[in-house]
Amino acid sequence: MNARASQSRHLRRTLLVLALACGTLAGAAVAQDARREGRRSRQREVKPIELTPAQVADLTRIANERQLSYDDLMAASKTFMPSGRHDEFVCFASGGQSGQVFAIGVPSMRLLRSIAVFTPESWQGYGFGVGHDVLAGGDMPSGREIRWGDTHHPGLSETNGVYDGQFLFIGDKANARVGVIDLRDWETKQIVKNPLTVSDHGGSFVTANTEYVVEGGQYATPLAFAYAPIDDYKKSYRGSVTFWKFDRTKGRIDPEKSFALELPPYFQDLFDAGKGPSHGLVFGNSFNAEMATGGVEGGKPPFEAGCSQRDTDYLHIIDWTIAEKLVAAGKAEQVGGFKVLPLETSIKEGVLHLAPEPKSPHGVDVTPNGQYVVVAGKLDPHVTVFSAEKIRKAIADRKYSGKDDYGVPILDFDAVMEAQVELGLGPLHTQFDDKGYAYTSLFLDSAVARWTLGGEYTAKHGEQPWKLVTKTPVQYNIGHLVTAEGDSATPQGKYLISMSKWSVDRFLPTGPLLPQNFQLVDIGQPGTTMPVIYDMPIGVGEPHYAQIIKADKLKSWLVYPEVGWNPHTQALDPKAPKQGKEGVVRDGRNVLINMTAVRSHFNPEHVEINEGDQVTWRITSLEQTPDATHGFTIGGYNINVSLEPGEFVEIKFAADMPGTFPFYCTEFCSALHLEMLGYLQVKPTGAKKDVIGMAE
Amino acid sequence: MNARASQSRHLRRTLLVLALACGTLAGAAVAQDARREGRRSRQREVKPIELTPAQVADLTRIANERQLSYDDLMAASKTFMPSGRHDEFVCFASGGQSGQVFAIGVPSMRLLRSIAVFTPESWQGYGFGVGHDVLAGGDMPSGREIRWGDTHHPGLSETNGVYDGQFLFIGDKANARVGVIDLRDWETKQIVKNPLTVSDHGGSFVTANTEYVVEGGQYATPLAFAYAPIDDYKKSYRGSVTFWKFDRTKGRIDPEKSFALELPPYFQDLFDAGKGPSHGLVFGNSFNAEMATGGVEGGKPPFEAGCSQRDTDYLHIIDWTIAEKLVAAGKAEQVGGFKVLPLETSIKEGVLHLAPEPKSPHGVDVTPNGQYVVVAGKLDPHVTVFSAEKIRKAIADRKYSGKDDYGVPILDFDAVMEAQVELGLGPLHTQFDDKGYAYTSLFLDSAVARWTLGGEYTAKHGEQPWKLVTKTPVQYNIGHLVTAEGDSATPQGKYLISMSKWSVDRFLPTGPLLPQNFQLVDIGQPGTTMPVIYDMPIGVGEPHYAQIIKADKLKSWLVYPEVGWNPHTQALDPKAPKQGKEGVVRDGRNVLINMTAVRSHFNPEHVEINEGDQVTWRITSLEQTPDATHGFTIGGYNINVSLEPGEFVEIKFAADMPGTFPFYCTEFCSALHLEMLGYLQVKPTGAKKDVIGMAE
Repeated sequence: MNARASQSRHLRRTLLVLALACGTLAGAAVAQDARREGRRSRQREVKPIELTPAQVADLTRIANERQLSYDDLMAASKTFMPSGRHDEFVCFASGGQSGQVFAIGVPSMRLLRSIAVFTPESWQGYGFGVGHDVLAGGDMPSGREIRWGDTHHPGLSETNGVYDGQFLFIGDKANARVGVIDLRDWETKQIVKNPLTVSDHGGSFVTANTEYVVEGGQYATPLAFAYAPIDDYKKSYRGSVTFWKFDRTKGRIDPEKSFALELPPYFQDLFDAGKGPSHGLVFGNSFNAEMATGGVEGGKPPFEAGCSQRDTDYLHIIDWTIAEKLVAAGKAEQVGGFKVLPLETSIKEGVLHLAPEPKSPHGVDVTPNGQYVVVAGKLDPHVTVFSAEKIRKAIADRKYSGKDDYGVPILDFDAVMEAQVELGLGPLHTQFDDKGYAYTSLFLDSAVARWTLGGEYTAKHGEQPWKLVTKTPVQYNIGHLVTAEGDSATPQGKYLISMSKWSVDRFLPTGPLLPQNFQLVDIGQPGTTMPVIYDMPIGVGEPHYAQIIKADKLKSWLVYPEVGWNPHTQALDPKAPKQGKEGVVRDGRNVLINMTAVRSHFNPEHVEINEGDQVTWRITSLEQTPDATHGFTIGGYNINVSLEPGEFVEIKFAADMPGTFPFYCTEFCSALHLEMLGYLQVKPTGAKKDVIGMAE
Repeated sequence: MNARASQSRHLRRTLLVLALACGTLAGAAVAQDARREGRRSRQREVKPIELTPAQVADLTRIANERQLSYDDLMAASKTFMPSGRHDEFVCFASGGQSGQVFAIGVPSMRLLRSIAVFTPESWQGYGFGVGHDVLAGGDMPSGREIRWGDTHHPGLSETNGVYDGQFLFIGDKANARVGVIDLRDWETKQIVKNPLTVSDHGGSFVTANTEYVVEGGQYATPLAFAYAPIDDYKKSYRGSVTFWKFDRTKGRIDPEKSFALELPPYFQDLFDAGKGPSHGLVFGNSFNAEMATGGVEGGKPPFEAGCSQRDTDYLHIIDWTIAEKLVAAGKAEQVGGFKVLPLETSIKEGVLHLAPEPKSPHGVDVTPNGQYVVVAGKLDPHVTVFSAEKIRKAIADRKYSGKDDYGVPILDFDAVMEAQVELGLGPLHTQFDDKGYAYTSLFLDSAVARWTLGGEYTAKHGEQPWKLVTKTPVQYNIGHLVTAEGDSATPQGKYLISMSKWSVDRFLPTGPLLPQNFQLVDIGQPGTTMPVIYDMPIGVGEPHYAQIIKADKLKSWLVYPEVGWNPHTQALDPKAPKQGKEGVVRDGRNVLINMTAVRSHFNPEHVEINEGDQVTWRITSLEQTPDATHGFTIGGYNINVSLEPGEFVEIKFAADMPGTFPFYCTEFCSALHLEMLGYLQVKPTGAKKDVIGMAE
C-alpha cells in the first residue's frame, strides 16, 4: 500500500463526517432513526417453518456439541426470544436487600430493568441529584436517614381484583416502609415510613380496588418506637397492620386518610386481601403465637425453637370495611401521630377475629374466585384451606373455640376449615393458574407442588378436588413462587417461577456470595407434566416475592409527554429551562443555572461560580426521540442524574469545593457523546467555612 | 373429609418437624446437602441425541407457536444453558453509571452477579455496615464523599499478556478513581483516588504482567484540583496518565510506588499496554488536539464542533520502562502529594512521543501478538493500524514530522503506519479472535465489522490481509465490543458481545429509561457468517467496556478458608467472635458485642445498651456450607451486612436513637429463617445530644 495515498485517504472527509461536526447532528439522528424503523418493521416477518433434514442435522449437531438433550432443546425453544421480539409477561420481583425492584421478561427470563426504590442508585440518578425528597420520606421519625431497604412484597394496583398496570407498591421489611412506583415512567414517587413499627412483612398487598395498600408488621415492638425491656413483652409489645389509603388520581398514599390496627404481639407475617365473596376482609397469618422472646445467650431456647412449640398459630381475619367506619367515626387513637384502632375496639366491634392455623405459617393466599384462603404452615406437611363463606358464617354465629390472651375471639377451626391437602415438607406459599390448580412451594422438599382446588373449580377438569397432582424438583430451597397474574382474579397460567433461594452449584461460582435461582416452570399442560425450562441467576439481591403481569397491560411512556416535564409532579414544570433562555443567574450567593441538553451539547458549557455559592442547577432535556437519554454529572461533586427525553431536573448543592470540574453526559447518546461536556469553575474565595446548608 | 380427623392430622408432627425445631437444624441441613449432591451428579449424564420424527414435530410445533425461525432455533440451541450447566466464559462488564461491575455468563448471557465497587450496595452490605473504609479511599482530597462511579474499563490482571484470573481493576470516569477487586471472593478491596485529575477515561488497563494499572485522564484540568479560568486553558490545563503500581502479594495498589506523567491538554481517551514486541510501551489516543474550550452559550462552537475541526489527533506513545527509571532516579516532582514526571522531562528523556491519528479516535487496541496498534477514529471510516516495530524504529531514527505546541515530537505518520482499512461509519473499538480476524464496532452503521489482520496473521487463512470481510448489523449504536479474551495474548474466538447503546424497540418498554442491549454474536465460523444469537437487556446501568475470561481460570472461594475470616485482610481475624465466647462487653460508653450466626439463630439474641453508647458489633458466621449465607440488619439503624460462610464482620455505630429494634437474618437461610432474629434495646438516657463521632 502506498503510504502517502493512504494518508491522503484518511484525510478525505465524507459528507457524513461534515454532518457529524455540525451543531445538533439532526441529519445523522434522523438517518439513524429511519434505519431503526426499517429494522423494526422487518422483524415480524416470520413464516411457519418445516425443518429440512439438513436443518435437523444441524440442530442435532449443535445439541450434541453442547450436550443438550431433547428436553433441553424443547426448553430452549420455549424460552428463547428472537432479537427484537418482546416477552409476553413482565415479572416485577422485589430486589430483596438491594432495596430495589427488578423487572424481568417472561418467558425469556431477562432482567429488563432495575427500579430504584429504597437505595440510592446512580444510573437513575436517584439520590445523586434527584429523588432526595422521596428518599427522605422514608427516614425514621427520629430523623435518622435510611438509605436501603429489604424489599419484600411488590403489589400491583388492582381494579376488581385484576391487575390494572398503573402502579406498583413495594414493602421494606427492615424498616417498615412502603414505596409507590408509577408505571408510566417506572419511577418511585413516594416512600412512606410506618409510624408505628420498625419491621414489616405483610406489605405491600392491595385491596381489590386498591382502596388501601396493606402493610402488616412482623417483629413485635412497643408501638411508635418506644423502649421497653424484653421482659415486658406481653404487656408492652404489639403487632400491627396498617391500611395506607391510596389516592389514585394523585398517585400517592395519603397518610392523613390512613389508619392502623393494634394487634397482639404475634409475629404477623403475610397478608392477602379478599376479593369477590371475601372482599372487605383481609387475611394475615402469624407465627410465634407462643410469644417466645428468645435468649439463647442466657440458656433459653432460641427464637427458632421458642417460636415453634405450639401446634397452631393464628390466622388474622380483619374486616377493613368496619375498621374504616370506626376510624371515620373517631374511634381511632393517635399513636405516633397516626390513627390507630385500639385492640379492644377491634375486638368489640368485630373488626378482628383469629382462627387456628397449622404451625409457623408463611403464605396466606386467596383463591382467584375469592372463596378460599390457603395457608401453608411451614412446619406442617399440609396446606390448610379456609372457606370465606364459612368464616363469615362462623363470625355471624360467634362460633368460637375460645379467646386468646388479649381477648380476641378464636373461630372454631372445624367451622372455618374447608380442606387440608398433604403436599410435602416445608410448604410456604401458594399461587393459582387458569385451570383450577394451585401451586405451593415446598422449601424443604425443594419442589413445586401442583394440587387441585375444590368447589367451583372441581368441574373444570376431571381430577379429584383438594388432591396433590404432581411435584417438580427445583434447585434449591424454594421460597416464594409466582404464577402469571396468579394472585389476582384472572390468573393466566402458562408460567410459574420458582424463587429458589439457594443456587449452590447451579451457576458458575461467584465467590462465597452466590446468586439466587429463578427457575421458570412450564405449567401450560395439565396433569403431571410440569418441567423446569429455564434457570435465571439473580445476583443483584435476593427477591422475596414477585408478581407477573401481562405486558400489554402496561402503558409505559417512552418519552415524557412534553419537553420540560417534571417526573415528580407528572406535569410540565414552569421552572424548566427553555431553549434560547439558557444562562446563569446570580442573586447574592444564590446561583441559578438554566441549562438545556440535546445531542450533543449542554448549554451553557461554562459555568463560573464562587466557592460558597448556593447552587440550583436546572436542566431540560430537549430530546423527544425514544431512548435519547442523556446523563449529567459534575465530576468530584457526587452528582449524577439521568435525563430522559423531555425530562426536567433540578439539582441543589453547595459549592464548597473550589477548583475546575468537568461536567459531561454520562449516557452514550451519539457519536460525539464524549464531546458533550463543559466546565464548572468554582473560584476560591476562602468562603468554604462559611457555607451554609441548602435553603430550599 | 372428616373435619375432626383432619384437625387431628394437622396436629400430628413428623420427625422432620421435630428435627427442625431443634437447635442447629444440623440434621435437616445434612439431608438437604445430600439431596443436592445427588442432583448435581445426575446432571451431567447427557448422551448424544438423535431426534425422532415425533420430536422434530414437537420442536416444530413449539417453534411455530412462538413464531421462531430456523435461525432462531439454532440461536436458541447455541445459547441455552440446561438447568445446572455452567457457562464457558464470564464477561466482566463495567456497570457504567451504576458504579458497579457486572459478571455475565457466556454464552447464556445471564447476569450472574453484580460486584459493588463505587456505589454503596445493600445486598452485599457494602457501605451499610462494612466497606466504609474502602469507599472512603475514593473520596476527594478535599474530604468530599463520593458514593457513586461512572465505571468504564474493567482490566483483568495479566501474566505475560494472558488473563490470570486473580484480580480485576475498574476505572471511574466521573471521579478519576480505580477499584481493585479480588477474584477469590469477588469483593472490592481498595479504591484509589487519582490525586491529579477529576475525570479519567483510559482506566483501567494493565501492563502485560500487571506491573502497573494504567489510568489515563480524560477532560483536562489544572492538575491536582486547582482553579484556573477556561481562558488559561493552554497554559494551565493539563492531561495526565497515571501508573498505579500493583502489589500482587498484598492485592493492593501501592500509591507510594506509583507515578504519573504530565501530558498536553488534549483529551486523552483510551489506553492499551503493549505486549511481546511492544511490551514496555503504552499507547493512548486522544481527541481535542484542537484544544477547543467550547462556549456555546457565548456563540462559540460547542465542544462537539470545536473538538472535531482537525483531521488528526494524537496517538500517545509512552515508554513506561524509561519513566519508571526516571522516577526511581528522583526526576519526578511532587504534585498533589504524588510523583509526577514533568512534560519537559518526558520529552527530553524519550518517554513520550506522539503520532498523528485520524480524527476523534476512540479505541486504541494492541493485537494479540503485540505487533500492531489499531486506532479507530470515530469521524473517519477507516481503522488505522500502526506497527510497533516501525514505531520503535521511528523513535530510534528520530523520524519526526514536527513537534506539538508543547514540544512533544510527532512521529512521521507514514513511518509508523502499517495499514488503513475502510470499514464504515463511526468505527470505535477493536478486538481480536483466534483466527487472525479483528472486529471493530461501527457506531453510526450500527454494525460489527470483521476484518483481516496482516503480518504473521495472514498465513493463517486464505483471505487477503487488511481487508473488510463482513459486517453484522446490531441494534443499535454499538459502543464497545468484546470478544473472548480478545484484548489479551490468547484470544479465544467463539463469542463477541456487541455493547449496543440504544435498545429503542428491542425489549418491552420500561418507561423512558430503556436498557442497553448486549448482543451475543457467534464468531465461531470464519468468513462472512457471523449471526447475532442473543439479545440481553442491561437495565442496571450502561456498561462501557467489558472483558471475557475463560471460566476455568477463575479460582473462586465458595466458603472462606477459615471460620472467622476477615475479607478485608484476607486472613483469619483474631477479633472474630468464637462459638461459646459470645456476649456483650461494656467499657464505659463503649460497648462491644461478640456475636455468632448459624442456622438459625444469632447469639446473643438480646442486646441491651444505652442511648449514647458507642457500639462495636462483631459477628462471625459459623457456617461452612457453600451458599449458607446469612444477612444481618438492625432495623431502623441503616445497617445491613452479608455474612458469607466463615466471614467475620465488624460494624460500628453510635446508638443515638433510643427504642426497641429487631435485628434479623436478611438471607433466606433455612426453613426457620424468619425466626432468626433478636432485639436491640436502646434505653433512653437523654444522652442523645452527647453522642460523639465514632472513635476508631
